[in-house]
Amino acid sequence: MRKFINEPSKVAQETLEGFLAIYGDQFAQVPGTLAVAKRVLDDKVAIVSGGGSGHEPVWLEYIGPGFADAVCQGDIFAAPAPQSIVRAAKAVERGRGILFVYGNYSGDRLNFDLAAEELQAEGHEVLTVRVADDVAAAPPDRANDRRGIAGGFFVSKIAGAASEAGLDLKSVQELATLAADRTRSMGVASAGGTIPGTDEPTFVLPDGKMEIGMGMHGEAGVRRADMATADETVDHMIRLIVGDRSLSPDEKACVLVNGLGATTRAELLIIARRTAWVLDQAGIRIHDLQVGDFATSQEMHGFSISVFGLTPELQKLYDAPGRTSFFSGANRH
Amino acid sequence: MRKFINEPSKVAQETLEGFLAIYGDQFAQVPGTLAVAKRVLDDKVAIVSGGGSGHEPVWLEYIGPGFADAVCQGDIFAAPAPQSIVRAAKAVERGRGILFVYGNYSGDRLNFDLAAEELQAEGHEVLTVRVADDVAAAPPDRANDRRGIAGGFFVSKIAGAASEAGLDLKSVQELATLAADRTRSMGVASAGGTIPGTDEPTFVLPDGKMEIGMGMHGEAGVRRADMATADETVDHMIRLIVGDRSLSPDEKACVLVNGLGATTRAELLIIARRTAWVLDQAGIRIHDLQVGDFATSQEMHGFSISVFGLTPELQKLYDAPGRTSFFSGANRH
Repeated sequence: MRKFINEPSKVAQETLEGFLAIYGDQFAQVPGTLAVAKRVLDDKVAIVSGGGSGHEPVWLEYIGPGFADAVCQGDIFAAPAPQSIVRAAKAVERGRGILFVYGNYSGDRLNFDLAAEELQAEGHEVLTVRVADDVAAAPPDRANDRRGIAGGFFVSKIAGAASEAGLDLKSVQELATLAADRTRSMGVASAGGTIPGTDEPTFVLPDGKMEIGMGMHGEAGVRRADMATADETVDHMIRLIVGDRSLSPDEKACVLVNGLGATTRAELLIIARRTAWVLDQAGIRIHDLQVGDFATSQEMHGFSISVFGLTPELQKLYDAPGRTSFFSGANRH
Repeated sequence: MRKFINEPSKVAQETLEGFLAIYGDQFAQVPGTLAVAKRVLDDKVAIVSGGGSGHEPVWLEYIGPGFADAVCQGDIFAAPAPQSIVRAAKAVERGRGILFVYGNYSGDRLNFDLAAEELQAEGHEVLTVRVADDVAAAPPDRANDRRGIAGGFFVSKIAGAASEAGLDLKSVQELATLAADRTRSMGVASAGGTIPGTDEPTFVLPDGKMEIGMGMHGEAGVRRADMATADETVDHMIRLIVGDRSLSPDEKACVLVNGLGATTRAELLIIARRTAWVLDQAGIRIHDLQVGDFATSQEMHGFSISVFGLTPELQKLYDAPGRTSFFSGANRH
């Protein structure tokens, strides 16, 4: 038991309280839920995200100007309850409709769909965008079965910016869907994380091995391989990511090198260095390169790479102001 | 060997290259060094920081507007060479003098002092501020023997802001020294990190134990204790930190909850929650609360807390614009 927590059953709630100890002037807890909502609202489509906790900053910290208006968490690795989602959505809905943005997991689909039905029965307009960016989770002909991982950041950025721009619900959904369709990700890990209160890693790897394409909850990957150099690993991942969706010559990319928890910043920067180089060699122009812990799996040692191919309209939305606790704008100017 | 690197001997250089792959439009490597310097300079005192690499974002990413003008790294956990410091300083000196800001370690003292002598011999004005915030490293009557840990963030913020304000070298040094004098920190860890290329943790703890007051390189702490709850651990640390330097009733504090590498964001937020609560109970008003990985020790599992007592002048400098890759301003408004 290495973790600095109080009771395992209170981790999600106390994490939220810690977030509000910092940002309580901007956000508030929705009573009776593990959800946080913005205090001051514009006349705009309400963006509501959520999913299991334990992936911090996902989803709790995906709230902010130009991002989600409410985020709703479940317990660790568990979908939020439908009633929590309904309450969070009502806390931020202002007559322009609600867009759900979340990762493509069966529990989340079920509960967000139940919440949507209830909200619709009460007269609210609700549309949904599911993030399914993990190319390792299923082949292209079953792309709807893919999991949502760190590429959800790009979808959240676009949904939030489109909403801030005053667009209507249908248009915000279309743009966020376009962003999801143009995003591909993949992860590797050399050690699993542990769930608070346990000492059991979510998956166990023999020494000197890495798991290619594992999921954010320790789901099995595509294959196990010997640990390779950072450069070799990046080259392999970029081949699979860009092989799944190639970029046209005039298409610029936003790229995210995401740490899964215990990966050092030095590793992430070394990975970013190679990622930038190999994309450049492939003739792909990088519009922005983000590096950090955007979506984690406890203290998993590993990383993912996400590539998001821009259109001119998506680029404008990506460059629009937007701010969360872990993002304050494009790094490249 | 869990790390995603290429060659252990190239980690520091490739980390710097990754940083420049992202921020190459703002900073450039100083030829022949592991240093990064700003490209565009103002007529201001040059702030030069540095130390061993392996603590990312320290020191490499402490560069930016309102922070350091040049940062100079050594190899992992090793001081930068005097010649590198001299070159980095010359790359950013513009006739207003140079302020060295670094952590109080013997290797760094030696090499920065040698660099200062050489620069002074060539006619440059050089002054120094050493960060020695770790209350666990030595008792108050030997405060000069204390190590510099994450509280260096506050000293860097004040030095950078004072320099941007156009103050002269002596005044910038005095304000940064005042910030250092008013900052106290302490860390705990439940597991050590490993140095790239090795599988040996920097220190080994029996299961269920934590090390109170260990250093950023795995230096022994004050004592070993059974793992306690996050709340109990925070309460103990705050007692020691505030016991070492008490805050006057009208003194507001900036607080940093710093992750040492593998600590999850949820843990850090749970710790921040209790830190805010216990300071509030003690009648200490928090001006800003920062949470994140500001100074790490590879994938060490643990955290530190830093408390910086403001004066009105220091508060103005703290609130002045300043930006690094991991900081974009105060969280509380």
